[in-house]
Amino acid sequence: MPDVLMGIAKAGLKQSPEPDLLVVLLPVRSIASFLFTDNFFKSGSVIYSEETFKKNRNIRAFVVNSGNANCGTGKEGIKHARQIAERTALKLKLKPEEVLVFSTGIIGKPLPIEKVLIAVDKACSSLEPLDLKKASQVITTTDSFPKFDFIEKRKVKTFGFAKGAGMIAPSMATMLAFVFTEAFVEFEKLRVIHKKINEKTFNSITVDGCKSTNDSFALICIGNKKAPLSSVEKDILQIAESLAKKIVEDGEGASRVIKITVKGADSSKKAKEIAKAVANSLLVKTAVYGKDPNWGRIAAAAGSTTFPIDPFKLEIRIGEYTLYEGKPLPFSEESVRRYLQEEKEVEIILDLKEGKNDWTYYSSDLGYEYVKINAEYST
Amino acid sequence: MPDVLMGIAKAGLKQSPEPDLLVVLLPVRSIASFLFTDNFFKSGSVIYSEETFKKNRNIRAFVVNSGNANCGTGKEGIKHARQIAERTALKLKLKPEEVLVFSTGIIGKPLPIEKVLIAVDKACSSLEPLDLKKASQVITTTDSFPKFDFIEKRKVKTFGFAKGAGMIAPSMATMLAFVFTEAFVEFEKLRVIHKKINEKTFNSITVDGCKSTNDSFALICIGNKKAPLSSVEKDILQIAESLAKKIVEDGEGASRVIKITVKGADSSKKAKEIAKAVANSLLVKTAVYGKDPNWGRIAAAAGSTTFPIDPFKLEIRIGEYTLYEGKPLPFSEESVRRYLQEEKEVEIILDLKEGKNDWTYYSSDLGYEYVKINAEYST
Repeated sequence: MPDVLMGIAKAGLKQSPEPDLLVVLLPVRSIASFLFTDNFFKSGSVIYSEETFKKNRNIRAFVVNSGNANCGTGKEGIKHARQIAERTALKLKLKPEEVLVFSTGIIGKPLPIEKVLIAVDKACSSLEPLDLKKASQVITTTDSFPKFDFIEKRKVKTFGFAKGAGMIAPSMATMLAFVFTEAFVEFEKLRVIHKKINEKTFNSITVDGCKSTNDSFALICIGNKKAPLSSVEKDILQIAESLAKKIVEDGEGASRVIKITVKGADSSKKAKEIAKAVANSLLVKTAVYGKDPNWGRIAAAAGSTTFPIDPFKLEIRIGEYTLYEGKPLPFSEESVRRYLQEEKEVEIILDLKEGKNDWTYYSSDLGYEYVKINAEYST
Repeated sequence: MPDVLMGIAKAGLKQSPEPDLLVVLLPVRSIASFLFTDNFFKSGSVIYSEETFKKNRNIRAFVVNSGNANCGTGKEGIKHARQIAERTALKLKLKPEEVLVFSTGIIGKPLPIEKVLIAVDKACSSLEPLDLKKASQVITTTDSFPKFDFIEKRKVKTFGFAKGAGMIAPSMATMLAFVFTEAFVEFEKLRVIHKKINEKTFNSITVDGCKSTNDSFALICIGNKKAPLSSVEKDILQIAESLAKKIVEDGEGASRVIKITVKGADSSKKAKEIAKAVANSLLVKTAVYGKDPNWGRIAAAAGSTTFPIDPFKLEIRIGEYTLYEGKPLPFSEESVRRYLQEEKEVEIILDLKEGKNDWTYYSSDLGYEYVKINAEYST
């Protein structure tokens, strides 16, 4: 990608022989916004980067290592993150506070910091233009495919790369996403867009309902191309949505994506909470896995939040089939089973019929493969 | 049981040839308190009973049917519950508002009300002293064993029966529990004890994190025996705890019970929320199934609530083994694996080291059998 540079190296943190360390150097004019997990059991890298970003908005580079989450290792983890930032700054002739650090992988093992610092040296001395596919491959852990996307609209490029497949064994945590736009957006506006898009995308997906210790999402303006804010926001949303959906598709043991839309709510917060409850319901996830048009489980999950719903107004659809509307409706079980069998993306729609707000959440089904991945592998 | 009478009959709601309808007649002097699910997609029986109990505290009888949850069937479900209460009242020479109705079983199928009313007639005309085992057998759905318990202390009997094994396929919902004490407690005090004990027992267990549409817990004083309130409360807690634990033991596909205790919290609300997050973590449940001493998943779940924890103070134990105390500790993985392998009840202890409050939650592990039960059976 134009202007953004990257360097990769191997610190030996992964079992595979692939590179596991990525350094990204941003153009001088870049404006970047970072969002971090709100889990209180945070990675040392998250603690360090969050504090650094709070004090200094002018971020010029970041380092990502895979294979080790730098989490649950005591205060040493924070020190290690600082050492990585300092070494990177030294090599790239930046100030230490201009560098952030992200980590993903095993929890509870100290980083072999000497090896990591040597890899940092190596990555910094072999910079090349950002290659989205290559960058995403370096930061994967148990992902089964690299996650990246690119669009160019009105001569403005927007692109990004990500990793994540749930918090999976052996203690592999983390979703990381880095989205770039060539358009210029001032920091305060960027921050607003960033939080809004985060809610709609990476905060509206679930594989196992588990919040990682390392989740981070960066939104970076690298250019000074001019574009109307609304179209910039649309482009960023498109890339972030695309990356978020790839994470769900790659959810451990998932055989299909479940798209849950709650419509007709009197607030979007309510629509989101209900969509989230359905998305995280084990009973709904296993029913989809079993191709079972079990609207009772969907209704029970929808009713389980702190937001009231009216069961005598509620409508539940799977794909184009309406199964319940204030009371059970007759439907062809065979057709719905076939739909659940054949579609890779299954749609569940709940209409509360009380207002005008909606929300969409993406989830994955849950079957034997999930148990296998999460129970049979070990630390 | 002395004074409490029951009648059973078969309405043909279950696939098995067993009785599926239970009528319980309480002594005149009884004082009863009822708690219902706060799911907004409620069973017609819950809607009817909750409204009736709000208007009239003097409950003299209740009817429980299994095999059909009387839920998701539109307003007809409420009408059916009323018809059952009216018929029971007629037969037992009570007022309709003195009778409550509970249902458990399939969601979304209308009750065959004529058959149910005939079964009510039959049950009311063959009353006998309450037999805990028999009563609990009548109300089971997919339970694999009947759930009841009995104690007698200081000549005061306390006893109860329950059903529940998670909200399981084919759309079988509901946990129901009925606890009785011979001691006299006035209504207002009973209500306080009831809510307190409910939080500590039936609201502190989880199989799949799914809140049923039919959950109900009744606490009934049948006698005028005198006993100090504190000892009455202790006895009721013992019976309720015993029944709650049986429900977890019988959780679908569960191979062991997980007892999660959060200690040293600065409020009991916080201790409870963190215990609940660990109890509902799919990653923790699958790790226990896989005998994997994965403290990273426990820590990540503990950090995922809205209550801050200090990762540099936190202590995590599995059984007698301390795995983490501000940082990872060396431990014999083999020994912890053996403990997870051999114990039917596995203990996870988290010490936040910030205060004096604790909370215990019971959960079950999650393996292939859970997926089988919930994905392979269908509506």
